[in-house]
Amino acid sequence: MEEKEISQAVIGRLPRYFRYLGELKDEGVERISSQELSERMKVTASQIRQDFNNFGGFGQQGYGYNVEYLYNEIGKILGLDRTHNLVIIGAGNLGRALGNYMNFERRGFLFRGIFDCNESLVGQDVRGVKVRHIRELEQFVRENDIEIAVLTIPKESAGKIVDRLVQNGIRAIWNFAHVDLNVPEGVQVENVHLSDSLMKLSYNINRYMKENER
Amino acid sequence: MEEKEISQAVIGRLPRYFRYLGELKDEGVERISSQELSERMKVTASQIRQDFNNFGGFGQQGYGYNVEYLYNEIGKILGLDRTHNLVIIGAGNLGRALGNYMNFERRGFLFRGIFDCNESLVGQDVRGVKVRHIRELEQFVRENDIEIAVLTIPKESAGKIVDRLVQNGIRAIWNFAHVDLNVPEGVQVENVHLSDSLMKLSYNINRYMKENER
Repeated sequence: MEEKEISQAVIGRLPRYFRYLGELKDEGVERISSQELSERMKVTASQIRQDFNNFGGFGQQGYGYNVEYLYNEIGKILGLDRTHNLVIIGAGNLGRALGNYMNFERRGFLFRGIFDCNESLVGQDVRGVKVRHIRELEQFVRENDIEIAVLTIPKESAGKIVDRLVQNGIRAIWNFAHVDLNVPEGVQVENVHLSDSLMKLSYNINRYMKENER
Repeated sequence: MEEKEISQAVIGRLPRYFRYLGELKDEGVERISSQELSERMKVTASQIRQDFNNFGGFGQQGYGYNVEYLYNEIGKILGLDRTHNLVIIGAGNLGRALGNYMNFERRGFLFRGIFDCNESLVGQDVRGVKVRHIRELEQFVRENDIEIAVLTIPKESAGKIVDRLVQNGIRAIWNFAHVDLNVPEGVQVENVHLSDSLMKLSYNINRYMKENER
């Protein structure tokens, strides 16, 4: 495959393609044209072709795409053809909910550890994994080939924890803390700012109500 | 305020401004220039001015912005100056975690009900709110002025539930189900596709590793 810089906008659309192709595969569909995929996904066929051209195009357009092939190729591009070890920092409600969420495991994201500074949570079980004290974090990350840390802690403690993770070789942070993180180049960050998303929703409710009052 | 169509990209940035201004306010900062805000938020000062100009500009640039005023104004634009009643559909781990999350309440998103079709969950307590059977959904939504439904159910059941919510006057859906929803115009949807976000992270890990092997 040709190596070129692919925009984060394209990358951001790949998981959605992957999701739709997975559904098609489950429905037993073997081939699909960019036109049919376009109708189903509500994006233009030309957008689909442009996006796929970033990765060499994935096959003949007259015959449509082979669903399983396309699904597997996009999976590989997304790094889903290998496993990723993951720890969760923060064993509160959200941390435990994510730990209990089996779907990530299916995609190769393996839940290896969960940490908290609250002694009363230490030793509790989250889907077969015992909550450890945060002081064991560094050693655990180094010894268990941990790539991804999921942060579900208050923003006040996020910075320090990130420094400790980075020093111990973490590759990526999935950040649910309500703060933007400073990390060195080479450490990937993906933010899930839940409050931001809820506020956007409330903005759109308000805007619609105002427009329709008049 | 002038009425014009404001792009979703601008709207998407407002919660982040609101978050930073809240922090400044907590730190006791009274005024801030667009230059200082720019350095802190790592966006250009011209971006900030452009974004704010969509809403009339928020005040004199020579003196900088009044932090509290700006915080309150953006809060109003985001619809945070009034409360929004919210129900959660799905009392699994994620649904319960969101119900237990107090920060939303602070912003005026009031957790009023939680529903599940699993009889064994009905009656359980989530921060003072009893889990109700999903058959009570319609009546509850109508009688309690519910604006927002949070969907934390499997994708298979999402479509039907959304239809029932829409028929009973829901204004907005905060969607954690792994499926894109069909709603009529006037019903706002904000998706949080957690798997998509995790896959994007795994793509970026892979890309970085490949680039640095060479």
